[in-house]
Amino acid sequence: MRSFFDYNWQVRDEWFAWCKQLSEEDLLKERVGGPKSILYTLFHIIDVEYSWVRAVMGKEDIAESFEEYSTLEKLKDLSDTYRKEIQVFLNVCPDEWTKNDLVQASWLNAGFTKFEIGHHIIAHEIHHIGQLSVWSRELGLKPVSANGIGRGLQNI
Amino acid sequence: MRSFFDYNWQVRDEWFAWCKQLSEEDLLKERVGGPKSILYTLFHIIDVEYSWVRAVMGKEDIAESFEEYSTLEKLKDLSDTYRKEIQVFLNVCPDEWTKNDLVQASWLNAGFTKFEIGHHIIAHEIHHIGQLSVWSRELGLKPVSANGIGRGLQNI
Repeated sequence: MRSFFDYNWQVRDEWFAWCKQLSEEDLLKERVGGPKSILYTLFHIIDVEYSWVRAVMGKEDIAESFEEYSTLEKLKDLSDTYRKEIQVFLNVCPDEWTKNDLVQASWLNAGFTKFEIGHHIIAHEIHHIGQLSVWSRELGLKPVSANGIGRGLQNI
Repeated sequence: MRSFFDYNWQVRDEWFAWCKQLSEEDLLKERVGGPKSILYTLFHIIDVEYSWVRAVMGKEDIAESFEEYSTLEKLKDLSDTYRKEIQVFLNVCPDEWTKNDLVQASWLNAGFTKFEIGHHIIAHEIHHIGQLSVWSRELGLKPVSANGIGRGLQNI
């Protein structure tokens, strides 16, 4: 599962770099088919990943507000900060995602296994990145590659 | 990795069912941001998955033509036929995707590890499904859920 996190983080960072060519207006413009805007979609990806990882950690959810992170720089900082914490968790508990024990998601009032939550986190980000790729083409811009090959992913 | 294949297949079948509400014109209409049309995107997903799995199997690529499968029924049959073969392979060789040995992709004239190819297959489908979800909203329709939770995925 760690390698899928690495894949998502590589792709996410390439989207952060891609975003630098856009105006604030284009970053925040509400579009059809995904969560609000390009920047909000990135916030949503970061927020959802962290919320589910915290749930698996057994920690309470932290509900951040988009308004606090509505610039590219602030959002990249949030992504980096959360990532460091998640990386430590993945290093210390690499097998957590293989477990079928139930985790309670406070914001859904429902329980899911750590195994399915891992899959959910990974698929959630790739799905929304696919939406960004459509918006990119609508802007006449080449999207970031979603390729899983050629990224140096290794089973170590 | 098997559970990610199962996730993709569940979601794909839900998109096949979703497509039944569309006219042939809407299914084949070329759109912005993904591979041509809704039906072509599904063909592309099926074709790419099978090509990479065959490469990992050490078998030659079979280049199918979209024109042979450009109805919902024919494409669903193709998906089902390929899936049965892939399921057998996943059952017999479940650990193939953990290996770092190189596989030659004839259509790219390049080599990639089985490990990264597995990730590529999974991310490739989720990415394009994300694009379908935008087109769905553009048509004023609710897309298929991309949730990984609530699908009964289990580590067995």
